[in-house]
Amino acid sequence: MPTHNLNVFALRLRLARKAKKLSQERLGILAGIDESSASARMNQYERGKHVPDFLMASKIAEILDLPTAYFYVENDLLAEIIQVSHTLSNEQKLEVLRFIKDLQDF
Amino acid sequence: MPTHNLNVFALRLRLARKAKKLSQERLGILAGIDESSASARMNQYERGKHVPDFLMASKIAEILDLPTAYFYVENDLLAEIIQVSHTLSNEQKLEVLRFIKDLQDF
Repeated sequence: MPTHNLNVFALRLRLARKAKKLSQERLGILAGIDESSASARMNQYERGKHVPDFLMASKIAEILDLPTAYFYVENDLLAEIIQVSHTLSNEQKLEVLRFIKDLQDF
Repeated sequence: MPTHNLNVFALRLRLARKAKKLSQERLGILAGIDESSASARMNQYERGKHVPDFLMASKIAEILDLPTAYFYVENDLLAEIIQVSHTLSNEQKLEVLRFIKDLQDF
């Protein structure tokens, strides 16, 4: 049984925030956290001390232009697939699905 | 701002469990919940009354052969992409990423 990385949320959040060049404080404020605690709360999330609930995770994901599920993916390549698929149209997503099914049949 | 579907976990869990033809009780027991409460706990998860923590979600995902992130995806097509990508080798995942990037450049 693989070890479940309970800090996967923390790791993905830090990477995604830095990619958007936002400070912890700024991201926290944009996600609706009070200015006085935004920096500390985001820091706790990134250190894996607390995991936000799904609603807060969804708010953060939206600000970072990511699907919420991105934060919960342990495999790096799967995380990247989710990240890039997020912005595709439904028709393009169907093309991706066909491509994957062809790969599996090969 | 879109409405965040807090019951996305409940919906995906029910669909995935039924696809594997497992009862709520059986899945709960396999996930390590005590026999006396397995059925009730799984039923609460599927009705969206409680959302399991990440560790329990990971255990359930493993039994159902799914990546944990699958439970947190709101878009149905993206959920399917995650589900089918999960079983690919890393080399195949890289092929999928190249395919998506070509789609985006098109």
